[in-house]
Amino acid sequence: MRIVALAGGIGGARFLRGLKDVVAPGDEITVIGNTGDDIHLFGLKVCPDLDTVMYTLGGGIHEEQGWGRAGESFAVKAELAAYGVGPSWFGLGDKDFATHIVRTQMLAAGYPLSAVTEALCHRWQPGVRLLPMSDDRVETHVRITDEQGSRAVHFQEYWVRLHAELPAEAIVPVGADTAKPGPGVLEAIAAADVILFPPSNPVVSIGTILAVPGIRAAVAAAPAPVVGLSPIIGGAPVRGMADKVLAAVGVEATAAAVALHYGPELLDGWLVDPADADAVDRVTAGGIACRAVPLLMTDPAATAAMARAALELAEQVRG
Amino acid sequence: MRIVALAGGIGGARFLRGLKDVVAPGDEITVIGNTGDDIHLFGLKVCPDLDTVMYTLGGGIHEEQGWGRAGESFAVKAELAAYGVGPSWFGLGDKDFATHIVRTQMLAAGYPLSAVTEALCHRWQPGVRLLPMSDDRVETHVRITDEQGSRAVHFQEYWVRLHAELPAEAIVPVGADTAKPGPGVLEAIAAADVILFPPSNPVVSIGTILAVPGIRAAVAAAPAPVVGLSPIIGGAPVRGMADKVLAAVGVEATAAAVALHYGPELLDGWLVDPADADAVDRVTAGGIACRAVPLLMTDPAATAAMARAALELAEQVRG
Repeated sequence: MRIVALAGGIGGARFLRGLKDVVAPGDEITVIGNTGDDIHLFGLKVCPDLDTVMYTLGGGIHEEQGWGRAGESFAVKAELAAYGVGPSWFGLGDKDFATHIVRTQMLAAGYPLSAVTEALCHRWQPGVRLLPMSDDRVETHVRITDEQGSRAVHFQEYWVRLHAELPAEAIVPVGADTAKPGPGVLEAIAAADVILFPPSNPVVSIGTILAVPGIRAAVAAAPAPVVGLSPIIGGAPVRGMADKVLAAVGVEATAAAVALHYGPELLDGWLVDPADADAVDRVTAGGIACRAVPLLMTDPAATAAMARAALELAEQVRG
Repeated sequence: MRIVALAGGIGGARFLRGLKDVVAPGDEITVIGNTGDDIHLFGLKVCPDLDTVMYTLGGGIHEEQGWGRAGESFAVKAELAAYGVGPSWFGLGDKDFATHIVRTQMLAAGYPLSAVTEALCHRWQPGVRLLPMSDDRVETHVRITDEQGSRAVHFQEYWVRLHAELPAEAIVPVGADTAKPGPGVLEAIAAADVILFPPSNPVVSIGTILAVPGIRAAVAAAPAPVVGLSPIIGGAPVRGMADKVLAAVGVEATAAAVALHYGPELLDGWLVDPADADAVDRVTAGGIACRAVPLLMTDPAATAAMARAALELAEQVRG
């Protein structure tokens, strides 16, 4: 079976680990990774979501934190600060720096991000095929109003430096309109037996992937069932700032509203948590099959059960 | 008093520390640093000699080693090796990486190496004005013959990876012929009251600086006395591979031969170690005033005495 998943960072990566636990030998998982949160720091190309997937599935992730490397040190960061070179709010560790140095060197040598990602995964062996959504530069910016007035900041600045405390007035995936899907992305979607939307951020993760021209249409046209898992439980994101960025696109932060935001053009099935059991009827009425199953990824078994439920729903809705 | 010194790496940096100890308040030291041993590693611009001077005079050097940072760690290097990305023979530590990241980022932003060096020195406060010999890329290559045949390798590969064990057949400062002296270099030489050649490598350090068109002529034409210190004691370099690279340019590895290699067009005075007292007559006969004083930089006091002797000889030969 060929499974395609669109994934952001921590939530997506953890879900994918559960998915790997439940697929049959020989099943192939292709992950289309969000690159809209990529950022250039210190002259280096940093791809937080791709790296979180790669580290998580490859056994190198800082488990408690969910991002960055286990057993990390911060000598480079301290030295950069001693030079007065910022930003200081982005926590790049020494091990992580090596990844960005390799990536930046390969990009400078002319390799596209997809080839670079494949090379990095050669070390990490994540057990999935990890494809950047695009080889073209896309950067999610967030419009805010602060003491400097109304302005757009990089998504990482909004989230990591500003802790998403200010309202997000608009989400702009800069460059997405002219970006092309990465090599293999459309082909994987078209050839998929199942397409999954993990409980990643529907706006700045999966929304950004879908904003690359051709990807949304490919998912909508794909013969495979498309099943998503709500990142909202009980009216709040399990982690992250989905409520803030949903507000920016005029969608309420509920399990039902997110499903209907994707819409039946994209989704065939949707999983909500039992805390949102009241969403089932509303989503079903919207033309999307809906089930309530526990959606907290509290441990590997719970996460595997979520993945199994998603695959089961896919079989049920298969046309 | 305005003192100008041409300097390579470890030997030059240690001498400069002694020089700082003996100059009068208000004296200004300008160091023209060799950049011929610069190398691009992992996409980063590494300037070993400039950094050795900067770290040594700024209090950040690994004292025993003579290069690199004190209290260094090697997490980035280990990770790069885990990615299979080399070379592994160049010992870049985490703290050192930060310097190269800042430098590379500034160069990519359009700043010349001289401005970058000034910015880095803003942190280190080396107490001297450190000027790269040129803002243009110059790379010293060494011609060798090994199992791969006759070929040129980067100087760092010759020295660090191959330990200078193979004969150096030729020394080629690639790019030197079209390089321009860095901002302030010729002006500093012309305005100097004393010009010093520390006991740096006469071929790949001071020789490379002099190979930048205009610098040799400026030193020869400078009104200031020019005094050098022999890097060769008792027929062998105190450290490094000066004997190997001297052979490549047809100069014997003796204190006298090095002085005569520079020649009376450049040098007004030359210091040799008492172990080479027999060189005094030969150098003097060559038109260069010569004194024998202890030249081993065994401790700060010994190094300061060397610097004092060089300044005294400069006064004696002042025309």
